[in-house]
Amino acid sequence: MRHVTLTATLALATAIAGPVLANDELRSYANELFDPIPLTTPDLPNNIITRPRVDLGAMLFFDPRMSRSGLFSCQSCHNVGLGGVDGLETSIGHGWQQGPRNSPTMYNAVFNIAQFWDGRAANLAEQAMGPVQAGVEMNNTPERLIETLNSMQGYVDAFAEAFPGEADPITFENFALAVEAFQATLTTPNSRFDQFLNGAETLTEQEIRGLNAFIDQGCAACHAGVNMGGQDYYPFGLVERPGGAVLPEGDRGRFTVTETAADDYVFRAAPLRNIELTAPYFHSGVVWSLEEAVAVMGVSQLGADLTDDEVEDIAAFLRTLTGEIPQVVHPTLPPSTNTTPRPEPMQGRP
Amino acid sequence: MRHVTLTATLALATAIAGPVLANDELRSYANELFDPIPLTTPDLPNNIITRPRVDLGAMLFFDPRMSRSGLFSCQSCHNVGLGGVDGLETSIGHGWQQGPRNSPTMYNAVFNIAQFWDGRAANLAEQAMGPVQAGVEMNNTPERLIETLNSMQGYVDAFAEAFPGEADPITFENFALAVEAFQATLTTPNSRFDQFLNGAETLTEQEIRGLNAFIDQGCAACHAGVNMGGQDYYPFGLVERPGGAVLPEGDRGRFTVTETAADDYVFRAAPLRNIELTAPYFHSGVVWSLEEAVAVMGVSQLGADLTDDEVEDIAAFLRTLTGEIPQVVHPTLPPSTNTTPRPEPMQGRP
Repeated sequence: MRHVTLTATLALATAIAGPVLANDELRSYANELFDPIPLTTPDLPNNIITRPRVDLGAMLFFDPRMSRSGLFSCQSCHNVGLGGVDGLETSIGHGWQQGPRNSPTMYNAVFNIAQFWDGRAANLAEQAMGPVQAGVEMNNTPERLIETLNSMQGYVDAFAEAFPGEADPITFENFALAVEAFQATLTTPNSRFDQFLNGAETLTEQEIRGLNAFIDQGCAACHAGVNMGGQDYYPFGLVERPGGAVLPEGDRGRFTVTETAADDYVFRAAPLRNIELTAPYFHSGVVWSLEEAVAVMGVSQLGADLTDDEVEDIAAFLRTLTGEIPQVVHPTLPPSTNTTPRPEPMQGRP
Repeated sequence: MRHVTLTATLALATAIAGPVLANDELRSYANELFDPIPLTTPDLPNNIITRPRVDLGAMLFFDPRMSRSGLFSCQSCHNVGLGGVDGLETSIGHGWQQGPRNSPTMYNAVFNIAQFWDGRAANLAEQAMGPVQAGVEMNNTPERLIETLNSMQGYVDAFAEAFPGEADPITFENFALAVEAFQATLTTPNSRFDQFLNGAETLTEQEIRGLNAFIDQGCAACHAGVNMGGQDYYPFGLVERPGGAVLPEGDRGRFTVTETAADDYVFRAAPLRNIELTAPYFHSGVVWSLEEAVAVMGVSQLGADLTDDEVEDIAAFLRTLTGEIPQVVHPTLPPSTNTTPRPEPMQGRP
């Protein structure tokens, strides 16, 4: 299901809703709706995950010289130590420009149906090409990026090893594939909820109540699967449109991608994995408390005025979705040379 | 020797200069002038290096929430993957303000007699308190920093473990001590030059020539000891004042610290360890090529118009000072809470 109408989503929400279930029934039902994060790196249809490619991807991910200013790397807005986000309402980029949307996490992003809040990139490789070129983010060009990579023997060697047999391995496409390969390894298995799905008694009574409410109220209609979301697109304000701070009028979401009226203010349902680590919430990033985010969702998407207890229970359940963060060794990057394009922090400032 | 007059320095340079030496004599003489970087973390007079303190320091070093904007951490300007610098002429800070000086590396900084280009901080703990508060850098206050740390259980626990027995371990002083403890572990032993000092035949003929020239021309008068510099203060332009781009008139160096006329345009001799990784050079950061930096030093400090061959030999020798970069695992940082001060990227912009 690539796109769902208002009626169909509400019908699905109602179908999922039902009586509160006991532990074993609940686990069995939850296993129909959700999947644990696999313990191994998933295969990619468009990419080959090898150690040299992942290692190269890590170098590129952490290298601020991929930006025109020399200040921003992927890591700047997708911090491996901060749940994969920057913790800002919306990200700050080249020349201190403020971007339009909250930075989504790259942890488990490999499980999303498509990337960005509006799904405009089909996969993580396509995604990786965006921020590098965006004037408000890294403000670079593919040509300048490739000149940078070609200027350092460390990158010349690493690309040759990551893309063996290619006559000219340093390309913008291969840059993106390497970053994707690294990001595919950034998954967070073994959360307490995943352990529960696998049969362990890892949840408290409150968390069990929260899981029941999450299913019962219909949250799982959009937030299901391995990533508890990230699988489909829905209008924000399905039942009641939230205020202009939460849903700014100027950002029409997926409409900009498809130019279809039905996609006005439509966004990809946020994946909820590690949600306790990724405040502030929503594409606008104006909601800082997880409880408030749950309450907003109840009103806007489900027409449900959740009680304070229900909100707290659901938030407690959502905090069980925090998985094991992979250990990332900060890569040592090759030194710049006399032919490396110099940083241009003052170029193209607004 | 805390301060050296023009005459004394030139006399020292002349004393060191002499005939080109054969390998074994050279090694023995070099061992009088220089020391290899120790293989273990050095003791600190003012601090206790324990695993919990180092681990806490790593968290603080990598946490952008130590800045008001939420964008800058110590790592932003002292990148563990880029030789401990940011690779910019002078650093960019809060609100995209450009700072006055080039970011010095924190690798082996523990071996410097004092910190900053003008030595205004006695040690790494004192140093750590500076950038956090500087309006042009992280633009934070000690109070806001402590409020941030107190808002997260992960930091409350980590400070308690790092400073056992203290009733109120979260203080600005302890923040600085933890950052210092982490930075004390950031040493880069086992460079090819250190292996040469220890008796191995690790240097090429050109590098040997370069080492001979380095001693013969008098460079070692200021760049000696374990850090090949970082031990004392000298006027930049001892013999001939370099141009205003290299030595901007507005930055009077150590004069601002001591307010003594003799300290006008006096700077700490730069430590040369890992110099190939830390371009651009000098406190002004305007010289990008190591060869050019060597030539500038020859003219301005030694009155020596080095030949192209000598410059290339010395630069080749300097590239043997690149040591083993320690593996740093990026720390996983505790999640912000409802009481964590929110990032204020737009506060106090110029």
